[in-house]
Amino acid sequence: MKINGGFDVAGRIEKYMWLSSPSCAVLRRQLFLIRTLGASYTSRTSYSQMERAHCSSISTPEADAEGVIRRITPVLDRTRYKGQAGRIAIIGGCREYTGAPYFTAISALKIGADLSHVFCTKDAATVIKSYSPELIVHPILEESYSIREDERETVTYKILTEIRKWLERFDCIVVGPGLGRDPFLLNCVSDIMRHARQLNIPTVIDADGLFLVTNNIDLVKDNSLAVLTPNKMEYKRLLEKILNSDVSEDNPSEQLRLLSQKIGGATILRKGKEDLISDAETVTKVSTFGSPRRCGGQGDILSGSVAVFTSWARNYVMSSMPSSEKSLNPLILGCVAGSILLRKAATAAFASKKRATLTTDIIEFLGDSLEEICPAD
Amino acid sequence: MKINGGFDVAGRIEKYMWLSSPSCAVLRRQLFLIRTLGASYTSRTSYSQMERAHCSSISTPEADAEGVIRRITPVLDRTRYKGQAGRIAIIGGCREYTGAPYFTAISALKIGADLSHVFCTKDAATVIKSYSPELIVHPILEESYSIREDERETVTYKILTEIRKWLERFDCIVVGPGLGRDPFLLNCVSDIMRHARQLNIPTVIDADGLFLVTNNIDLVKDNSLAVLTPNKMEYKRLLEKILNSDVSEDNPSEQLRLLSQKIGGATILRKGKEDLISDAETVTKVSTFGSPRRCGGQGDILSGSVAVFTSWARNYVMSSMPSSEKSLNPLILGCVAGSILLRKAATAAFASKKRATLTTDIIEFLGDSLEEICPAD
Repeated sequence: MKINGGFDVAGRIEKYMWLSSPSCAVLRRQLFLIRTLGASYTSRTSYSQMERAHCSSISTPEADAEGVIRRITPVLDRTRYKGQAGRIAIIGGCREYTGAPYFTAISALKIGADLSHVFCTKDAATVIKSYSPELIVHPILEESYSIREDERETVTYKILTEIRKWLERFDCIVVGPGLGRDPFLLNCVSDIMRHARQLNIPTVIDADGLFLVTNNIDLVKDNSLAVLTPNKMEYKRLLEKILNSDVSEDNPSEQLRLLSQKIGGATILRKGKEDLISDAETVTKVSTFGSPRRCGGQGDILSGSVAVFTSWARNYVMSSMPSSEKSLNPLILGCVAGSILLRKAATAAFASKKRATLTTDIIEFLGDSLEEICPAD
Repeated sequence: MKINGGFDVAGRIEKYMWLSSPSCAVLRRQLFLIRTLGASYTSRTSYSQMERAHCSSISTPEADAEGVIRRITPVLDRTRYKGQAGRIAIIGGCREYTGAPYFTAISALKIGADLSHVFCTKDAATVIKSYSPELIVHPILEESYSIREDERETVTYKILTEIRKWLERFDCIVVGPGLGRDPFLLNCVSDIMRHARQLNIPTVIDADGLFLVTNNIDLVKDNSLAVLTPNKMEYKRLLEKILNSDVSEDNPSEQLRLLSQKIGGATILRKGKEDLISDAETVTKVSTFGSPRRCGGQGDILSGSVAVFTSWARNYVMSSMPSSEKSLNPLILGCVAGSILLRKAATAAFASKKRATLTTDIIEFLGDSLEEICPAD
């Protein structure tokens, strides 16, 4: 199985982040040979036949997730100014749902983003604003019930004009938390996603955003800056729609890789007991145990967390790191980091609150958990 | 007095959960004889004449309430996914009342339910949402003042269509907290209750929900999945309406049993200094002292608590337990567990806050109180 440039030309195996289990030793040596026998180091090696043949015989490698966080989390120094640690936007929040976009947006801030915006409907905005004065909430989306048929075109134009003023400022957007399924609203959001893509803004897609893209796969097809974060049911629907198949119990990693390949390499984080992450070339997992409490809202923390870490990982990869690391996929790094941080915070919250643990409690532990992995000083 | 399959065929008395006081020793032996002399063990024994004759001479048995909690509370293990620990819905919240449905819904989450929904009016929704991002609040009910006479039919149809999409997902619903008494709204809620009954969803009825069913007893008649939780005045009104009598001081247990029998076996939890619980066949009590502070809202905690424990008790009874326990009525178990947990949390909150104790303080102790009885690890 291919890994993303995890060791350098001199073969320093300690940098080999993805394949850490002893069962992968043979494959690691083979990969090393492939690399040193002429494959361009900075270009991403394709997932070869030989590697695939190994897939069924080896376990999916566990990511060195805490190591990823330590690498990509920016150093806080006195020269930094507002916005440099991340400007995140959430597209979500409608008449029905307000908690989900709040959880995503506040999680992004608690991890260390400087600014967190929410673009939602008018009904949702008042409520989301009331949850926290830390968020910037834009009441600009509309649902079918609030507009007349003959206004649709004008309203769409107005919404897109408004959001375009903001979009290019963001390091990452999250589409879906509390979005709802109103057809008019989803149409507008499709346009927003297309525009974000033109601007090369990484886009995390969760919840009703996944409902949208499952039925309009072109929105993420061939977009290497898209991350899909499906839970069990959402993944099942994606598989049915895209691969026309049911969930494989035998080789879930290869199935995930194929799904990602089929949609042209968008990254997929398949949530579950262990999170599996693939970008059509690599498959890795994060299986550190989180919490047995399965209260609703944890997926919203994850999408906010992945958004922040993805924007940090992009800076890390694009900055003056050794060229050997430039082939790392920042979206994979963002998923790995987001996954482990949620799991650690959930563990800490459960140790404190037990069965009464709610999403708000987990969010309160994001800071301590990050500090434990990667101290700010 | 009959108990719900509390000891097995071999007569293991330690499983006999309901009758624990020494004064019941004679009756216990009689019941054991009745059982072993041919009554079907797994079918629920009726409350015989002989047992009733004893009622006036013995005190109502105290439930081993903490034991019930320990039995029915699900083990938290790593394989569980969102929703498995309970999806609860509250039907309530109108222009006038917003606190009550919030208390019920958040209590359900704090005890361990995974998802808690509130179905209320538009006016109430914004406020209830703003109390907590953890709840999913649906602004779909309407009151008379907000709709025209000629719209009623269409609006009713729309409300029912919307709620039917959700109803089958819930493990238990609570009807009444903050519901108000608007006739149009109550008509809609009657239809929702009928639909929940068709779907075999346990339904806890409190507050204005009791006003509704007291005047429309068919809504709960012969519904073995209904739980009524009247306070002193609500119970008095029920008695007047159904049994045409005043509250009995001499034999409150038998009167409660008769009331339950008259409405066909719906479970009744009569709240008071001691909570009495009956399903027409058994009567049991929970009398552990709670708190001398009688601030409004404690009944809302109870209804949410009963809802969660009832859904857990149903899973417990329907799961692969020894057949000797399959005759247990999960609604009785849910009431017993809900009653003791509220009492313990109220005690803890009062010890901490004294006269300043409010419902919110009690809710904050639900987790610790449950942990004390039934540790999560």
